Amino acid sequence: MSLDQSAQKPQDRLAAYLSEDLERVDALIRERMASKHAPRIPEVTAHLVEAGGKRIRPMLTLAAARLFGYAGAHHVLLATTVEFIHTATLLHDDVVDESGQRRGRPTANLLWDNKSSVLVGDYLFARAFQLMVETESLRVLDILSDAAATIAEGEVLQLQAARNLATTEETYLQVVRGKTAALFSAATEAGAVISGADADAQRALYTYGDALGIAFQIADDLLDWQGDAGATGKNVGDDFRERKLTLPIIKAVAAADAEERAFWARTIEKGDQRDGDLEHARALMERHGALAATRAEALDWAAQARAALAELPAHELRDLLGALAEQAVSRLA
Amino acid sequence: MSLDQSAQKPQDRLAAYLSEDLERVDALIRERMASKHAPRIPEVTAHLVEAGGKRIRPMLTLAAARLFGYAGAHHVLLATTVEFIHTATLLHDDVVDESGQRRGRPTANLLWDNKSSVLVGDYLFARAFQLMVETESLRVLDILSDAAATIAEGEVLQLQAARNLATTEETYLQVVRGKTAALFSAATEAGAVISGADADAQRALYTYGDALGIAFQIADDLLDWQGDAGATGKNVGDDFRERKLTLPIIKAVAAADAEERAFWARTIEKGDQRDGDLEHARALMERHGALAATRAEALDWAAQARAALAELPAHELRDLLGALAEQAVSRLA
Repeated sequence: MSLDQSAQKPQDRLAAYLSEDLERVDALIRERMASKHAPRIPEVTAHLVEAGGKRIRPMLTLAAARLFGYAGAHHVLLATTVEFIHTATLLHDDVVDESGQRRGRPTANLLWDNKSSVLVGDYLFARAFQLMVETESLRVLDILSDAAATIAEGEVLQLQAARNLATTEETYLQVVRGKTAALFSAATEAGAVISGADADAQRALYTYGDALGIAFQIADDLLDWQGDAGATGKNVGDDFRERKLTLPIIKAVAAADAEERAFWARTIEKGDQRDGDLEHARALMERHGALAATRAEALDWAAQARAALAELPAHELRDLLGALAEQAVSRLA
Repeated sequence: MSLDQSAQKPQDRLAAYLSEDLERVDALIRERMASKHAPRIPEVTAHLVEAGGKRIRPMLTLAAARLFGYAGAHHVLLATTVEFIHTATLLHDDVVDESGQRRGRPTANLLWDNKSSVLVGDYLFARAFQLMVETESLRVLDILSDAAATIAEGEVLQLQAARNLATTEETYLQVVRGKTAALFSAATEAGAVISGADADAQRALYTYGDALGIAFQIADDLLDWQGDAGATGKNVGDDFRERKLTLPIIKAVAAADAEERAFWARTIEKGDQRDGDLEHARALMERHGALAATRAEALDWAAQARAALAELPAHELRDLLGALAEQAVSRLA
């Protein structure tokens, strides 16, 4: 490996390794998101699918299949499926999130976008479904239909958990699986299945994808409290302002005394937030070690992801997937 | 057949014939719409799935399978699949339609419902997908994934066609297939496939379902212009007020002179509607025979549905399906 390569991020090195497959995925995305009858569909999806997507999920499927020397074409169908499901959930998340941002009074323009987001999301989900049927693997269909149910269930659970101080770490984990890990693990497991890998290898790649997704999401939620805006593209404290119960806050609430509990009830449950509250919230987290404990959990999930790979045969892609798990948490201070 | 039976509507006679199967479908619906982690899901779906649904789509699947003497259990999985897909599209339609009804300013309560509608619809769609994978029939998966894509495409097309006087009868037909006929034809065709019926019989049942769905939808759209509110549960003129381009209006616009065209442009494109406009619109339709021509098309599609059945072996269910096609248009004056 040259110096240049080692300086690159693992996901860029994966993209370079898989560049031919990724080009086929991109071509298939363009072909399948078209609609003979409804030209609005590619207009709505183009900015999501074409512009700057990191393609992390398709890369997971492609890498899992190539790791076992797969030489067919079904991994490209599957990788495209996974990206379409991801894009469909992004479109539907927009509907759920945007409405909150405008404080219950969306503009007509926003509503038009909502309609398009719902229906075009449905279209992409149906197209994903058609693509995976083309693989003719009932096992793959099983994995991806289960993932789709876990994703939707996790989103509903997140709605219920919002602003609810009784949210447990168990519920948080279920939400994280729905939000991120279910599609990561389906992407890696389905890639292994399509390549004909044995049951142990399939299981190892499922475990890798699941742990990787959880590590990424916990790291994201931690950076919302202590990151710098440049690293995440989000503003520090967004989750606090949106009253989201993520792991750092769940841990701080669990350790709170009566006075602290009243603070969380006012700021999160009632939504009465004042100057200095964000800083006080962070001070309470430091007091109870909530940020350090969250960081430790993220590192532990990343380690579990790497450990799962140890069961697989030696391969450059295996090492790149391991490096990706390290990258998930290397952003943490 | 007793006098009592002959006095019943065809769909009630179908329900009586299929009552045991329908009970199994209802039990499966209750079982599969539950969620271990997100109790809100059955709360949202219960009123849609349990209360007064006519179960027309599941009956189509069950009847198609039983027509060929199917004695397995997969037709119940399929019938439940079809009802879940239907319920998911209703939930997503709510989001699309309700926002308009409140003139761009939904209440917080409405927004909460929107979130739940989008996500619970996604959940039901995923559950439908799991159910059909359990049939282990790639052909059935193919039929239903194609139907899902046609449904979503039709909905987007309907958004584009709204308020657009250039909408053609061809576009209208595509919208109707997405809205109604695609799931009807998938329900009947998949029922035939699962029963092991031959290719000609599968094709005949596809044609029956497609024509039945189109006949039903054209009849609904006609009744919006000339029905009595009691028969449809809708107010006459709703589509005019909502500026929807259905078949009667498309035919009237196609035959319009310059003055009439200006009327349609003002009322439909610009949405400037005044007292007496609804009556004037109907008078224009009468002048050009648009209502009579629409009625003739509905009758023709119902006749096509019945003709398709003629290719199938004699069976009480075949006669009931034929009567259902008559019922679709018997509401028309």
